[in-house]
Amino acid sequence: MKTLWQHCNIATMADGAYSIIEDAAIVTYEGFIEWIGPRVHVPEAEYAQTHGLEGAWVTPGLIDCHTHAVFGGNRSDEFEQRLQGVSYADIAAAGGGIASTVRATRAATEDELFDSARQRLACLLRDGVTSVEIKSGYGLSLESERKMLRVIRRLGAELPVTVRSTCLAAHALPPEYKDRADDYIEHICTEMLPALAAEGLVDAVDAFCEYLAFSPAQVERVFTAARQMGLPVKLHAEQLSSLHGSSLAARYRALSADHLEFMTEEDAIAMARAGTVAVLLPGAFYFLRETQQPPMDALRKHGVKIAIASDLNPGTSPALSLRLMMNMACTLFRMTPQEALAGVTLHAATALGMGETHGSLEPGKVADFVAWNIDRPADLSYWLGGDLDKLVVQKGVER
Amino acid sequence: MKTLWQHCNIATMADGAYSIIEDAAIVTYEGFIEWIGPRVHVPEAEYAQTHGLEGAWVTPGLIDCHTHAVFGGNRSDEFEQRLQGVSYADIAAAGGGIASTVRATRAATEDELFDSARQRLACLLRDGVTSVEIKSGYGLSLESERKMLRVIRRLGAELPVTVRSTCLAAHALPPEYKDRADDYIEHICTEMLPALAAEGLVDAVDAFCEYLAFSPAQVERVFTAARQMGLPVKLHAEQLSSLHGSSLAARYRALSADHLEFMTEEDAIAMARAGTVAVLLPGAFYFLRETQQPPMDALRKHGVKIAIASDLNPGTSPALSLRLMMNMACTLFRMTPQEALAGVTLHAATALGMGETHGSLEPGKVADFVAWNIDRPADLSYWLGGDLDKLVVQKGVER
Ligand SMILES: [Zn+2]
Ligand SMILES: [Zn+2]
Repeated sequence: MKTLWQHCNIATMADGAYSIIEDAAIVTYEGFIEWIGPRVHVPEAEYAQTHGLEGAWVTPGLIDCHTHAVFGGNRSDEFEQRLQGVSYADIAAAGGGIASTVRATRAATEDELFDSARQRLACLLRDGVTSVEIKSGYGLSLESERKMLRVIRRLGAELPVTVRSTCLAAHALPPEYKDRADDYIEHICTEMLPALAAEGLVDAVDAFCEYLAFSPAQVERVFTAARQMGLPVKLHAEQLSSLHGSSLAARYRALSADHLEFMTEEDAIAMARAGTVAVLLPGAFYFLRETQQPPMDALRKHGVKIAIASDLNPGTSPALSLRLMMNMACTLFRMTPQEALAGVTLHAATALGMGETHGSLEPGKVADFVAWNIDRPADLSYWLGGDLDKLVVQKGVER
Repeated sequence: MKTLWQHCNIATMADGAYSIIEDAAIVTYEGFIEWIGPRVHVPEAEYAQTHGLEGAWVTPGLIDCHTHAVFGGNRSDEFEQRLQGVSYADIAAAGGGIASTVRATRAATEDELFDSARQRLACLLRDGVTSVEIKSGYGLSLESERKMLRVIRRLGAELPVTVRSTCLAAHALPPEYKDRADDYIEHICTEMLPALAAEGLVDAVDAFCEYLAFSPAQVERVFTAARQMGLPVKLHAEQLSSLHGSSLAARYRALSADHLEFMTEEDAIAMARAGTVAVLLPGAFYFLRETQQPPMDALRKHGVKIAIASDLNPGTSPALSLRLMMNMACTLFRMTPQEALAGVTLHAATALGMGETHGSLEPGKVADFVAWNIDRPADLSYWLGGDLDKLVVQKGVER
């Protein structure tokens, strides 16, 4: 049974540009887009349903391609302490920072993790998100990483959103492995990843390449193990310093390298060649009051695809709105609204290895789209906060 | 008929501090708070209704004390052009900037202005706002300022929110008065203000004191006229340069001086003496990528009350969330979450001349409060965007 959606303007985002069709229509069938084009050319057919969209602007469903949405507790207490003048060092000495989230995540039940993550995802969904990536990485043991990944799978099964799961066991060094980072990497490669992948819990493998996390050599061991299991890789790279993790990621044909404030032009060239997407995370940049901006000119010059994500996490980006990240990408990184929209649609899909099926509105792709009651696509990046009037269609069905 | 609300923790915000009552209860009667305190001391009485709040954190309803929520059109097209590299000068030469909003506002009907403002206010309300100030200032003629003020009054009559109306005729120079600013000021003082005040449309009078708007001498004429009509005044001051508008405002015992990035310690001393509230607008600071921060130390040292507002307007702060402004106040201005909460409750009420009746939860005050499903009050400033789970009570009734 086919459904017709009409009386709208569409920013299809084909090829990462608005690619506007005015006075347009979409035909969906069994969750996919069968036809899209000007309304006057709608194919003659029996339509089970016809929806008038009253002049709305239709875009692909938004895709948040980098989140840590599953975690125990939150860190608003540390946020408050820092603003009261307590130093990072004192907070860390008192067991704060990522260690506190690891403790809370380990202590939480699957149901507790599920319930709190569901509330956070509900915020993202209300903003028009139809696909979301979620990383593990606050368990840092086989058992607790499994718990996180099971919660991530359950979120995908129970909520009206497509969820991709990423194993980020190489996020930080667990206390059990203090001063034994190589041993922990060995544990990840030989025990955690094989077990978790065998259980079908892992869509991709990620790591945190930074002085205060893991070295490029350690990341390379994780990537090699992932490759042997046939799993695609991603990398947190160049957030605080330049270790050329993004070039390393490109060598392993990573889906994406993420953060990237300190990347060089050479890194951009390597990423462009490999098709590795640059995922920028303006929420963390804002929240940490960073000043080093990602090299937009180099990324554009070499044709690196640029995605934008929330980085939703309790420590450095407690962001519950992807549209707000679009505004921050424009305001802080000087991206255009068109780049920002491509960054949360087509390029975000590519960063998740699903660019062939998601991220733009074209025949054969999944019918995930949003009909926004706005004046023009730039409105999505322009308004700061708020809940724009919209209709969300997920796999061909109004959500 | 009395209503009992219980099983909650309360940040009463009395005296502008959290002033927490744990395991608390509130008794409301005919829209007011009759009693508030620890649950174990709830007065014996016949309660028409009893609400269990399940451990929620209760705060005063949020108050947005500085908005320009009524306007025609929006400026997302200019936002996009600037990010595409078009200069401010070229946009202004093409009729952009505030001139385009004045044209669109003058061209809009009352119903059109009402409908678009209602949608924007719905966003603010969803965030827990129970009182909001709205300024005129995009009409700049008697007829069109009257139209805006009538829309503002109608918003207050039809929406479940307390609305205060401010006449900002001295916002910008209308095209009819090009090169005749003094004549426009004269027109405001002798014709616009008397007529609009006589129609009961004006709760306060505001002006924009800046090189590119009106001089301190011109502002003083407006303030004198307002004083003669018994109307309180406010001032946009020290946003882009230091003209000591905030000291001028203090001399006229203004309710507030707003923006204030370039104010001096002497200005802070004058404001503290006069009881003039400092209204900080971090959304505009962020959106314009300003670098000069308001002098927080001087404001604190001299005991100036600090409020936070959205400045919701199409040109410099298209902000639809007051909680996001709390985060920006913390992140960008290094306010504490407690200061930010006081800034959108008690001090915001004082900035609207309603501190005696609103802004904190104390016996005798209006029963405007929000029960938030959060871990601690700092959560309100911590989360970036999103729609926190909550129950809003407006004048004693669940909204
Ligand atoms: Zn991350
Ligand atoms: Zn303003």
